[in-house]
Amino acid sequence: MDKKPLILVTNDDGITAPGIRTLIKVMNSIGDVVVVAPDNPQSGMGHAITLDSTIQCKREHIDDGPQQEYSTSGTPADCVKLAIHEILDRTPDICVSGINHGSNSSINVIYSGTMSAAIEAGIEGIPAIGLSLTDYSWDANFDHLEDFVRIITNKVLHNGLPEGVVLNVNFPKLKEGEFKGIKVCRQAKANWIEEFDKRQNPQGKDYYWLTGKFANLDKGEDTDEWALGHNFISVVPVQFDLTAHHFIQQLNTWDFNG
Amino acid sequence: MDKKPLILVTNDDGITAPGIRTLIKVMNSIGDVVVVAPDNPQSGMGHAITLDSTIQCKREHIDDGPQQEYSTSGTPADCVKLAIHEILDRTPDICVSGINHGSNSSINVIYSGTMSAAIEAGIEGIPAIGLSLTDYSWDANFDHLEDFVRIITNKVLHNGLPEGVVLNVNFPKLKEGEFKGIKVCRQAKANWIEEFDKRQNPQGKDYYWLTGKFANLDKGEDTDEWALGHNFISVVPVQFDLTAHHFIQQLNTWDFNG
Repeated sequence: MDKKPLILVTNDDGITAPGIRTLIKVMNSIGDVVVVAPDNPQSGMGHAITLDSTIQCKREHIDDGPQQEYSTSGTPADCVKLAIHEILDRTPDICVSGINHGSNSSINVIYSGTMSAAIEAGIEGIPAIGLSLTDYSWDANFDHLEDFVRIITNKVLHNGLPEGVVLNVNFPKLKEGEFKGIKVCRQAKANWIEEFDKRQNPQGKDYYWLTGKFANLDKGEDTDEWALGHNFISVVPVQFDLTAHHFIQQLNTWDFNG
Repeated sequence: MDKKPLILVTNDDGITAPGIRTLIKVMNSIGDVVVVAPDNPQSGMGHAITLDSTIQCKREHIDDGPQQEYSTSGTPADCVKLAIHEILDRTPDICVSGINHGSNSSINVIYSGTMSAAIEAGIEGIPAIGLSLTDYSWDANFDHLEDFVRIITNKVLHNGLPEGVVLNVNFPKLKEGEFKGIKVCRQAKANWIEEFDKRQNPQGKDYYWLTGKFANLDKGEDTDEWALGHNFISVVPVQFDLTAHHFIQQLNTWDFNG
């Protein structure tokens, strides 16, 4: 690549989150950076888009640096759409989303605003990476992830990604020097065992908080959960063709005439 | 099945939408029906879940009939979680979501609240179907879909679905007698070409409405778009293992050491 790559940076924790500030810092060392990110936290937004209300967009100056920054009132997927179709002069060479405060491994990919932004870029034909750290704390330390983020981003810029594929990268919560390396994985078959915390408001009306425990019943050693539990950084290639191709043949044997 | 099946009904257009009223009517002819659906429209919510605020849930009586009904302030995925873990005494035999006012074929599956509810049920191990009509009108006619909905639901109750697979059913906007039949398909490779409608508020501040055109560049005759365009009801088996298994081998050849 002769000219500097144009890099779109977004996230779902909001434009001021420490995770995206680290990501911007690393991307400034690789290319020309434009940040378009939500103006408030959007965790758990899945692939929501804003259809029934308007989207505001504001130029921001949060940290010093060469990056251009915009905050929007939209979802992570909205941010990517707005960046590509309104803000940027040309199609970005890559979109990076994160670094998320919290895991997006296994089934979490489904609920993840971070990954929905990466997938939205992928739908638009842009190589994309979602990055997450399995530490939900706002004060999580991201500094020691910088070299790995740079390596993975450069690999994608250099090698490209197949049409319809984006990467889901998760970092285990470890100190510098404790990572065993980067491991290519499949999404573990796991789910949340929900528990609703039922409470009463001062007027005696019930309401609920969604809570729950993550349950990984997948014993495979090729999963992202295994990798993260064994001190590896997990990289799962993710697709947005949701067709269960393996079931089409059998489904065709069903007699739908009665 | 000896006893009557327990059927969970939900949607993303809200509990009063004509589409879900038709679905409830059909399901009452098949089993014991419990409705848990959003109290307001949630289109485009993708797989959003409510993490940062509370969820209210209210017993409803909208139409006469044997069904039990509850509205919630949550997303479609929240509704399914709340139904399974708080409202229902036992795991439902099937979850049906819809009938959506508008298409959820092709890439729309990604943005669809209707399908996220079906997928959420699938994650919980419950056979699930999302149903949509390619007519966005609130006054769309759903009556002539009833027989097809009954047939597909009974097939799933009888045959089951493999672990990790739910069905995405779309009806073309046609009159009674115009359907050519039910066709098993794959998700077409299509996307939206976004156009943002940029406006100014009375104070002179810019804001945007998300809009766009659907572009299907997939010429395959095995896609849902082809089926719908040729007067078939499309049935796509959908999975929530998003791993791009076909790319794992090649990704393993990448040298992440520098």
